[in-house]
Amino acid sequence: MTSAPNALRRSESSRHATLDAAMALCAEHGYGRLTIEAIAARAGVSKKTIYRWWPSKGSVVLEAIYEMGRQTANFPDTGDLQADLHTQLSAVIRLLTPPYRSALTGVIAEALNDPDLAAELRESLIRPYIAQFEDRLRRAQEQGQLHPDADLTVALDLVYGPIYHRLAFHLGLPEPSYLDTLIEHALRALAPGGRQAPT
Amino acid sequence: MTSAPNALRRSESSRHATLDAAMALCAEHGYGRLTIEAIAARAGVSKKTIYRWWPSKGSVVLEAIYEMGRQTANFPDTGDLQADLHTQLSAVIRLLTPPYRSALTGVIAEALNDPDLAAELRESLIRPYIAQFEDRLRRAQEQGQLHPDADLTVALDLVYGPIYHRLAFHLGLPEPSYLDTLIEHALRALAPGGRQAPT
Repeated sequence: MTSAPNALRRSESSRHATLDAAMALCAEHGYGRLTIEAIAARAGVSKKTIYRWWPSKGSVVLEAIYEMGRQTANFPDTGDLQADLHTQLSAVIRLLTPPYRSALTGVIAEALNDPDLAAELRESLIRPYIAQFEDRLRRAQEQGQLHPDADLTVALDLVYGPIYHRLAFHLGLPEPSYLDTLIEHALRALAPGGRQAPT
Repeated sequence: MTSAPNALRRSESSRHATLDAAMALCAEHGYGRLTIEAIAARAGVSKKTIYRWWPSKGSVVLEAIYEMGRQTANFPDTGDLQADLHTQLSAVIRLLTPPYRSALTGVIAEALNDPDLAAELRESLIRPYIAQFEDRLRRAQEQGQLHPDADLTVALDLVYGPIYHRLAFHLGLPEPSYLDTLIEHALRALAPGGRQAPT
């Protein structure tokens, strides 16, 4: 044993410095130009230290996004489902903005070519948000704000889909008033009573 | 003038060979590994020839997708809006499949880091499809299959959004029966009469 135990223990300050450096560099130069070398230099840690904890730059950035999202993108519960969805979706849109400088957009792009990063993106970042979303919608069902038979998988796709369709094709992420329009439509779709020709 | 006029004219056979080579190589190795050099070798044309006609590999692949889409992904009009959307969306899903080998997914990923390719993707590939989509929905409005006040921009986002949300986060592209469920919901959302509590 040539290393002291502390040298192998993940230090919180180095971890935070690494995550902060990754986010700052994405914001300055875009995810595409990010390298582990640049993150290490900015954070004042060695590349070896980074590779000990993360397998790739995508993995560093995913954890940084997760930490940022914990502070900014949780689901509120004010009792008003539409308002709460607007709040959370606005936070997601901020994470995806500005184009070509968003860490989240960079990870989404890279994961489309990288099955390992894709699995990490889905399991570590997205599944916890899906669980939060479903919890929030179940409470809305209990409170009578959402039909008890509403399909929560469809709900997720209809509520979040427009953002990623617009992101993929560079159609402009929704402004607040259009976001409201989209959420209204999605919630209307989820009401099985909302048939065109009710009997 | 050292070149014969023919040497500068874009030859249809070289063009087709280039587009076919790009699609074949994407399918075999994935867009990420595609190079202009490999396309040139497969197509039996020079790199110089390719660069004379296209600024980047993304641009070659976009044109190849456009050509493929013209044969497979147009909007039918059988008079049944839901069935026609299902047909067209199924074609889009095929273009996005399989994961990590789809040329369209590769271009979407690269365009998220490349403003020039993003503009070309939107203007050359996507805008024509949006125009087709809106034409089809206007005919449905004329035929009484869709409410005359339905917002066609919202329609586009709700109908196509789920595919790109699921693509971005590797949640699995919709199977036929789930695709039907999604289209039903989106069409229900577009009926302004479909309020939860009609008066």
